[in-house]
Amino acid sequence: MSLSRFMDLADFSPAEVEELIALADRLQRHPEPKALDGKILGLVFLNPSLRTLASFQAGMARLGGSSFVITPGQGTWGLETRMGVRMDGAAAEHVREGLPVLASFCDALGIRAFADGKDLNADIDDSTFKSMAALVDKPFINLESAINHPCQALADWKTLNDLAIAPRSKFVLSWVPHPRALPLAVPAAALHMAALRGHDVVVARPEGFALPSAIMYRARAAAALSGGSVSETNDRAEAMQGAQVLYAKEWGCTSHYGDAAMDARLRADFSHWQVTEESFAGAMADCRLMHCLPVRRNVAVAENVLDGHRSVVLKEAHNRLVVQMAVLHRLLA
Amino acid sequence: MSLSRFMDLADFSPAEVEELIALADRLQRHPEPKALDGKILGLVFLNPSLRTLASFQAGMARLGGSSFVITPGQGTWGLETRMGVRMDGAAAEHVREGLPVLASFCDALGIRAFADGKDLNADIDDSTFKSMAALVDKPFINLESAINHPCQALADWKTLNDLAIAPRSKFVLSWVPHPRALPLAVPAAALHMAALRGHDVVVARPEGFALPSAIMYRARAAAALSGGSVSETNDRAEAMQGAQVLYAKEWGCTSHYGDAAMDARLRADFSHWQVTEESFAGAMADCRLMHCLPVRRNVAVAENVLDGHRSVVLKEAHNRLVVQMAVLHRLLA
Amino acid sequence: MSLSRFMDLADFSPAEVEELIALADRLQRHPEPKALDGKILGLVFLNPSLRTLASFQAGMARLGGSSFVITPGQGTWGLETRMGVRMDGAAAEHVREGLPVLASFCDALGIRAFADGKDLNADIDDSTFKSMAALVDKPFINLESAINHPCQALADWKTLNDLAIAPRSKFVLSWVPHPRALPLAVPAAALHMAALRGHDVVVARPEGFALPSAIMYRARAAAALSGGSVSETNDRAEAMQGAQVLYAKEWGCTSHYGDAAMDARLRADFSHWQVTEESFAGAMADCRLMHCLPVRRNVAVAENVLDGHRSVVLKEAHNRLVVQMAVLHRLLA
Repeated sequence: MSLSRFMDLADFSPAEVEELIALADRLQRHPEPKALDGKILGLVFLNPSLRTLASFQAGMARLGGSSFVITPGQGTWGLETRMGVRMDGAAAEHVREGLPVLASFCDALGIRAFADGKDLNADIDDSTFKSMAALVDKPFINLESAINHPCQALADWKTLNDLAIAPRSKFVLSWVPHPRALPLAVPAAALHMAALRGHDVVVARPEGFALPSAIMYRARAAAALSGGSVSETNDRAEAMQGAQVLYAKEWGCTSHYGDAAMDARLRADFSHWQVTEESFAGAMADCRLMHCLPVRRNVAVAENVLDGHRSVVLKEAHNRLVVQMAVLHRLLA
Repeated sequence: MSLSRFMDLADFSPAEVEELIALADRLQRHPEPKALDGKILGLVFLNPSLRTLASFQAGMARLGGSSFVITPGQGTWGLETRMGVRMDGAAAEHVREGLPVLASFCDALGIRAFADGKDLNADIDDSTFKSMAALVDKPFINLESAINHPCQALADWKTLNDLAIAPRSKFVLSWVPHPRALPLAVPAAALHMAALRGHDVVVARPEGFALPSAIMYRARAAAALSGGSVSETNDRAEAMQGAQVLYAKEWGCTSHYGDAAMDARLRADFSHWQVTEESFAGAMADCRLMHCLPVRRNVAVAENVLDGHRSVVLKEAHNRLVVQMAVLHRLLA
Repeated sequence: MSLSRFMDLADFSPAEVEELIALADRLQRHPEPKALDGKILGLVFLNPSLRTLASFQAGMARLGGSSFVITPGQGTWGLETRMGVRMDGAAAEHVREGLPVLASFCDALGIRAFADGKDLNADIDDSTFKSMAALVDKPFINLESAINHPCQALADWKTLNDLAIAPRSKFVLSWVPHPRALPLAVPAAALHMAALRGHDVVVARPEGFALPSAIMYRARAAAALSGGSVSETNDRAEAMQGAQVLYAKEWGCTSHYGDAAMDARLRADFSHWQVTEESFAGAMADCRLMHCLPVRRNVAVAENVLDGHRSVVLKEAHNRLVVQMAVLHRLLA
C-alpha cells in the first residue's frame, strides 16, 4: 500500500488499516530512529491542540526527523481560508499562498482546521479543508478537519485491538454534555471507524443531536461491508445493554446547526447524559469507556469513571503517537 | 568571503551576492545534511512571521542543526527595546539582558523587529535594531528590521537569476494598496537589491508615498556602481512601458509618516493602484509579478494575476529557504 | 547518585550538588553531542518564560536530543489544575489527563507553574505543583513551581563556584522594588541554596515582606548542616557591611499575602530599596550583584549597576544552560 495523503480512515479497507497498525506495532518493537533522517514535517494549527501538537513532533523525532509548527494568529498572522474574497479584513495572508509556501519548506504537511459550525452541509462536505489540502503538493496529513479526525480514529482502532475487543461486539457512541457546541469531526470519525471494524454500533443521543444522515449513511455502508451494523436511539440506557464499549463524545445540536442560542437551550435539558458508573448498568462487566480527550470532568464524564478501571482514555491518547509514527513512516520513509 | 553578520544586502558586492547564491545552488544540488551538526540557531520574533519562522527552522534541520523560537508576548514576556528607560510598564525584561542571554544559549541568533512607524529618521537609521544587534556577540541574522530585509532581497535576487532576467532590464517597484501603513523595510530592500543587480529601476508610487530620499540616494549609488539606474514617478502606467518585472509592495505614507489618520485619508484615493492584468499594458510580454508575501488578494493584487502566468511569488518564497541555507552555512559551517 | 526527579535543590546534599556541577563542567570541556540521541523532552509552560524555554531546548539539542513545547492558552487550550472540580469553565482539559498523555509522548517532562498568590500556605506547600508532578511517571523537572526554582538555584551555585566565592562569605538576599507582587519561588530557592552552600546569609526586606517562617526555618536547618547561618533584617545598609554577594529579588507582600491593594500600598513606600551603587557601601570591594532575571532596569536595580563590574547576571543566566545539561544527562543518559 502506497500512501501520499492521510485524509480519512474511510479511504482504507479494514485490511489496510490493520497493515498500518501492524507497522505501528513493528515500530514499537523495533524502533527505527533513522528512518526519517533529515525529513521535515510542517504542522499548521488553525485551532488549538495538545495531543496532536505534541505527538507529531515527538513522532518525527523518534524516527530521526524534525518538524516546525505554524499557529496563525499566534506568532503568525491570521490566514484567510475563503476563496475569492477581497482581503480587506483581519487576515493578512491567504492559504492560497501560505500553504504552498509552507509545503515548499518541508517534506510533508499536516493541517488542523475545525468546522465553521455555521453551514452543516459545507462542514459535512469538508469543502474548506479539501480546498486547503488541494493547495499542498506534498504528502499531507489531516490533523482534524471539519468532519474528520483520521489520526484519532486510527488510534482508537489500535486501542480496540490492544484490548482484544472483538469486532462484532456492541459499541455505543454516546453524546455527552459540554458547555458549548463542539464539531462533528470526532463522532463522525469514531462512528465510521467502529462500523468499518465490524462492530454493532449504536449512536445514542438526545433529540436534536442526531448525527447527519450523510454521516449515518456512510457508516452503514462501511458496516455492511465489514459485517457490522449501525443504529441510533435517544435511549442510552437501552443502548448500553450488552455494550462492550461506551465511546463518549460531545457535539453540537444538528437540528438547529449553528444556532448557538437554540443549541444552548436544547442542551440545558441534557446534563443527565453525563457518563457515570450508573450509565454502565446492563453493559458487559468489562465494558470500556473511550474518549478522544480533552474531556470535561464531571460535566461529560464523572471523575470516578474517568479514573476508574473502565477508562482507556490514556491508552487511546498514547496510541496517537504510536499510529502516527506508522503514518509518517508510510508517507516519508 | 567570511561572514559573521547578515545585516544588509548592501554590505555585499554583486560578486559576493553571486557567491552566496552559488553556494545556495550547490547546497540544492549536493545537500549537506551534516554541515551544521549540533549547531543551534536562536530565532527572536518581536513581530509575526510565517515564511521566516518556518524556513529558518527548516533550513537548520536540512543542514543537521536545530533551532529554538522566542516570541515575546506569546509564551515569553514582553521585551523592552528602548535604552535608558525606567521599566515600570508592561515589558518585564530588557533586550540588554534578554538578547545576550539568548545568544549565550545558541551558535547564531536572528532577530525580527519591525519599524515603530513613528519617527521616520529613527526608522531609516534602524537605530533600535542596530543597538539590539550590538548586544549579540554571536553570528547574527537580520530577520527583518525597521528598514531592511536582506533575506528577502537575497531570495529575490536568486529568483531573478533563476528566471534568467537580465540585469539591465526594467524593474518597476510599485506601491500597492493595503488597509494599513506597512513598514518601508521590503520596498527599501527590494529597491536596493534591484539597483545593485544593475536594473533600470523605476519606483512608482502615488503622491505622499515617495520613498525617503536617503533610501533613494543609497540605491542610486549602488546603481551607479552596477551600471543600472534609479528613477521615480507617480505615473505607473508610464513606468510599466517595457518593464520586465513588476515588484508590488505596500507601504505607509511618508509625507506624513506615523500619522495614521492622514495615511488613511491619503490611501483612500489610491485603491486603483491595485495590480491587475491591465497594469501590464505596454510591459514586456513575459513581464513578471513579484511580491514578498503576505499579499492581500484583490486589494494589493488581483486574484487572476496572483494565480496567473506572470506570478513568481511562490518561487520567491521557496527561495527564502534556499538562500538562507547558504547564509546559515556561511555563518556556521 | 541516581536521579529521576529534579524537584528541589534541598533534596541534595552539598556533595551531590557539587557532583552535578562537576558533570556540568565536564560536559562543557568534553561535549557529548550524542549522549541523548533520540531522547525527547516535553516542556509544559503554564506561565511565561525566556531563559527556561530557550535553554532547555538548547540543552537537549547540544546533547543530541530534541524537545517539544506546550503552552496552555497559546496554541493549546487552558489546563485545569484544581482537583475534583466540575469543569464548566474556560479550561477544556484537566492536568489529570493532559500531563500523563504528554508524559507518554516523551522521555522526560518539565513543568512550569507559578504560585496562585492567594493562599500562602498552599503556595508554600507547593501542593498544586506536587499533585501535577505526581501525575507524571517519567523523569521530571521543576521548571519553577509556586515555591521553588531548583534550576535557577543550581545555576546560581555554579556561578558562585565559577567566581571562587568562598562558602562562608556573607550573602545578602535583598528584596527590591517591582510594580507587582511576584512569587516567592526564587527568593526561597536562592535563600536555601546559599544556606546549603554554607554562607552567612542575611535576608534584607522591608516590613511586611518577611519570608515565611517555614522558608526561613528550612534554610536555617540547611545552614546548620553546612556551617553557615541565616538571619534577617529590615536594615539593608547594615546587612551589606562586609557582604560578598548582593542577590536582588522582587517578591510580594507576605503580611497581607494575596491582597493586591495592600501589597501596592506597602510597596509604594519602598522604591528606595532599588539597588544602586550606593547600596554597596561597606560591602567587600568586589561584592557581586546577582539576579535571576528578568529584571526591571531602574526599578529593581539601577542601570549602571546592572551594566557595571559587579553584575554577574549574564553569567548566572548562561549557567542555566550549563547546569541543566547536567540534570538532563543525569535523568536521561
